[in-house]
Amino acid sequence: MKKLITALLLTSSLTANASNTEFTQKQLQQIDEVRTSALNSDLSYKLLESLTTEVGPRLPGTENDKKAVAWAQEKFNELGFDKVWLEEATFPEWRRFSESGKILTPSEQTLHLTALGHSVSTPKDGITAEVILFETLDELIAAPANSLKGKIAYINYRMNRDIDGNGYGPAVRARSTGSVEAAKKGAIGYMMRSVSTAHHRFAHTGGSHYKDGVTKIPNVTIANPDADQVARLIALGKSVTVNINVQNEDRGQGTGYNVIGQFNGTENPEQYVLIGGHLDSWDLGTGALDDGAGVALTMAAAKHISDVKRTKRSIRVVLFAAEELGLWGAKAYFAQHNNELNNIVAAAESDFGADVVYAFESNVSAESLPVVRAIAKELAPLNIEYIGRNQANGGPDLIPLKAATSAPIFELAQDGTDYFDYHHTADDTLDKVTPAKLRQNTAAYAVFALMAADAKTTIKPKAQNK
Amino acid sequence: MKKLITALLLTSSLTANASNTEFTQKQLQQIDEVRTSALNSDLSYKLLESLTTEVGPRLPGTENDKKAVAWAQEKFNELGFDKVWLEEATFPEWRRFSESGKILTPSEQTLHLTALGHSVSTPKDGITAEVILFETLDELIAAPANSLKGKIAYINYRMNRDIDGNGYGPAVRARSTGSVEAAKKGAIGYMMRSVSTAHHRFAHTGGSHYKDGVTKIPNVTIANPDADQVARLIALGKSVTVNINVQNEDRGQGTGYNVIGQFNGTENPEQYVLIGGHLDSWDLGTGALDDGAGVALTMAAAKHISDVKRTKRSIRVVLFAAEELGLWGAKAYFAQHNNELNNIVAAAESDFGADVVYAFESNVSAESLPVVRAIAKELAPLNIEYIGRNQANGGPDLIPLKAATSAPIFELAQDGTDYFDYHHTADDTLDKVTPAKLRQNTAAYAVFALMAADAKTTIKPKAQNK
Repeated sequence: MKKLITALLLTSSLTANASNTEFTQKQLQQIDEVRTSALNSDLSYKLLESLTTEVGPRLPGTENDKKAVAWAQEKFNELGFDKVWLEEATFPEWRRFSESGKILTPSEQTLHLTALGHSVSTPKDGITAEVILFETLDELIAAPANSLKGKIAYINYRMNRDIDGNGYGPAVRARSTGSVEAAKKGAIGYMMRSVSTAHHRFAHTGGSHYKDGVTKIPNVTIANPDADQVARLIALGKSVTVNINVQNEDRGQGTGYNVIGQFNGTENPEQYVLIGGHLDSWDLGTGALDDGAGVALTMAAAKHISDVKRTKRSIRVVLFAAEELGLWGAKAYFAQHNNELNNIVAAAESDFGADVVYAFESNVSAESLPVVRAIAKELAPLNIEYIGRNQANGGPDLIPLKAATSAPIFELAQDGTDYFDYHHTADDTLDKVTPAKLRQNTAAYAVFALMAADAKTTIKPKAQNK
Repeated sequence: MKKLITALLLTSSLTANASNTEFTQKQLQQIDEVRTSALNSDLSYKLLESLTTEVGPRLPGTENDKKAVAWAQEKFNELGFDKVWLEEATFPEWRRFSESGKILTPSEQTLHLTALGHSVSTPKDGITAEVILFETLDELIAAPANSLKGKIAYINYRMNRDIDGNGYGPAVRARSTGSVEAAKKGAIGYMMRSVSTAHHRFAHTGGSHYKDGVTKIPNVTIANPDADQVARLIALGKSVTVNINVQNEDRGQGTGYNVIGQFNGTENPEQYVLIGGHLDSWDLGTGALDDGAGVALTMAAAKHISDVKRTKRSIRVVLFAAEELGLWGAKAYFAQHNNELNNIVAAAESDFGADVVYAFESNVSAESLPVVRAIAKELAPLNIEYIGRNQANGGPDLIPLKAATSAPIFELAQDGTDYFDYHHTADDTLDKVTPAKLRQNTAAYAVFALMAADAKTTIKPKAQNK
C-alpha cells in the first residue's frame, strides 16, 4: 500500500497543474494539499479506534449509544468544527439479552444463531421443533396452508459475493418478511441462513418486520457453516429437530440524537455539502466496518479540509442515529430540515465498510456535470474511476432525502467484496480495517467535499419529477 | 488443484519405473496404483463429511463420543477391514454447559470467551473483577505475592504463525499452568489471549491443569479481537472490569474406546504399520480439522491399499479416544500393548488439520534408511520433500509410545500455516477442509503405509537408550 500511495502522490501533482474552469490554480493546489495530508494522516483510524474501543457496540437506546453521542460531540469540538449540535430522533427500542441454539436430532450439536432485530422472545426454555427447509422465500410462500404447523421454517438461500454487494438485496427479502410468511403457514419459529458471505460461525443480525394480524414468531439467522450442516443433515433424509432460545425485549419508543458538526462556508454558509455515516451499530460487534469507518472518515475528511481552508459553502458532517433499526435518525433529520433541503448542494454517505473507494458517480442536473467531472479528475489519482451514468444511489441514510425531494446525490463506491463476511456479525471489529485503505477513503471524501463546497458553480439536483 | 493432480500423475508414472532394491517392479506398480486411486477418490472426504455431520462434536464421555465409536466400527466394517475391535480407555470426564463474558467498564461490551478443559465453574452470576494484564506467563510468575488479590489475571501473549506450528508450544505454557500461577498470587480468575492465529472472534479451548494445594480458579481464554480490545483499553489507562461466567462440571472417571481396524499381513501379520488419528474432539466445533481429517484419511488410505493388495505386514488404523483431555486413549493403547510394541514397524499419526503434506521424516535405525528413502521417492510425486534429519516426532498420540520404547516413528508433516486459525474453536467445521488437499494427504498415507508394510526389509527403531 505504501507503493500505491507514492504512486498516487506522483500522479496527483500532475493533475493539480491541469487547467480547469471551475477551480482556480490556487484551489487546485489546495485540493492537492488536502488529498496529500489525508493520505498521510492516521486521524480517521485514530477516531475509529477510539470509537470502537472506548465506546464499542452502539445499539440505539443503550447506554453505549448515549456514550457515542457524547463521544461524537467531544471529537467534533476537539477537531475545531465551527458548530456542533444534536438533533433528536425517536425509534422503537429493542434489546437482545441472550440467545442459544442446538441441533437436537439426529445428533446434539451447537447451532450458532442470532435474533433478528425486533424478534420476539421464545419461552424461557426455547422452542423445540422439526426444521422444514426451503431454498427460497418464494418456495416458502408457495407452501400449502397450515403445512408448517408446529414446525420451524428454514430458508437456506445463499447470498452471492460481489464488489457492489448486489447479492444483499435479494437475500434480505427473506430477512424482512420471512417470519411473517412462515407464521402464515403455521410455523412456530423462523430461521434462515445468514445474509452473509462468511465461512465462519457468526450469525448475522439485521432488521426485520412483523405484520399486524400475523402471529409474531421468533426470528433468527444461523451462521453459514451451521446452515451447511442443517442442509446436509436434511439432504441425508434425517429429521432435524432444533431448540432455539432467544430472549429479547421491545421497549417502546426510545430517543437518540443525530450528532452534527459543521465548518461554515465563507460566501454561502446556508448552503452545504452533507457527508457522514451512522453513529449507531448493531450490538454484536463493535461496529467498526458498519459504520464506525463512515463516521471516522467523514469527520476526518472535513477536518483535513479545514486545516487548509474554509470553503465557500459549508461542510456538514451528519452522524445519523438509529440507522440499523430503520433509518430513524435520517428520517428525523430530513423531516426537521424539510423546508431547506435545497440548501444541500451535494450529499454522500459512507456506509459500506472500509475497503477502498473504487468508483465515483453523481446524480445531479446535466448542467452540473462539468463540476462533477472536475471532481472526478481529482479523485482519479486515488485510483477512483468515474462512472458517467449519473444515477448514484447514495447511502441508506439518504433514502429519506431522496423520498422527500430531488437532491444532488453522490456515491463514492467502496469495494464491498469482503464486506458481507463481517457485516452485522460479532466479527465486525477494528482488526478488519486496513489503515491505508481507510486513509484512501478519507482522502476521497475530503477531495469530494472540498470541491463540491468550493466550486464556482453551485451543484444542482435533477429536475423534480413530482 | 486439478492441474496439480495431473502433474503429479505424470511424474508418478516415471517414478514407478525407477529401479529399487527394496521393492519389485510389480510392487512399484501397485504403489503407483494406490497413489493414483487415492488422489482420485473422495472416500476420505465422504468419511469426514459423515463423521462431522452425522455425529458432529465428540467430547469424550458424551453421547456423541459413543456415537462416534459406533460410527467408526460401522465404517471399518463397511470398508472391509479384516478385523475391527474396541479397546477401553478411561479418562477424567468434563462438560461445558454455558459460558458468557462481558467487559463492564469503561464501557459495556461482549467478551467472547471459552472455558479451558477442566475449568471449574464460576458462581451462578459469574465473577466480576478488574483485569490485570501481563504480556507473558513469566511476568505473571514474577509478580509480587498477593498482588493479584481479588483480580482477574490476564496474559496477552500472542502466538506466531508458522508452517510447522512452532508458535504453539511457547503459547501453550500459559494455558497449561497460567491459572495455577495466577491463583498463587491471589487472583480469583484467569484469562488469556487465545492460543490461536485467528483474526476472528472465536475463543480457543484446550487442556489445562490445576495443582493440588492451589485454589482452582475459573480458567478461560478470550478471542483475539477481544484480547486486542482489552489490551487497547488498558493501554489507554482505563480500569477494565469484566464479568466471566462459565458453568462446567468435572464428572469423575469416564470410559471410552479406541476403535481399531486392521488389514492383516500375509507373511508377518503380527507385525504392523500403525496409522491413525484421534476420534474425539473438543465440543465447540465439529472437529473437522482436529481430528476428523486424520481419522478419515487414515481409514481411507488403508482401504485404498486393500483394494490393490494385502501387504506382507499388517496395516492397523488406530482411532484414539480422549486425546483432547490428555492422550488417554493413547496411554491405554500403548499400556495394553506394552509387551508387543516391537511389532510396530512404522507409526505415524495425522493430527494437524487437512492442509497438504509438505515433508516426510523418519526416526528409525540407520540400517532402515534405505527403505525410508525408497518411501520418500514415492512420496516426492505428491510434492512431499524428504527431510533427512531422522528425528521425526510423530503425532501427539505417539507420545506414550515414545515414552515406553524406541519405536520407528514417521512424520508426514502438514502445512500448519492456517491450522491455528481454527484449532480448538467453534470454527473447526467441514467447510475449512479442501477436498483436493485431503486427497493428497490420503495418498501420502496410503503410499507410506503400503511401502512400510510391504518392504523387503523390516524397518527397525533406533537402539534403545534405556
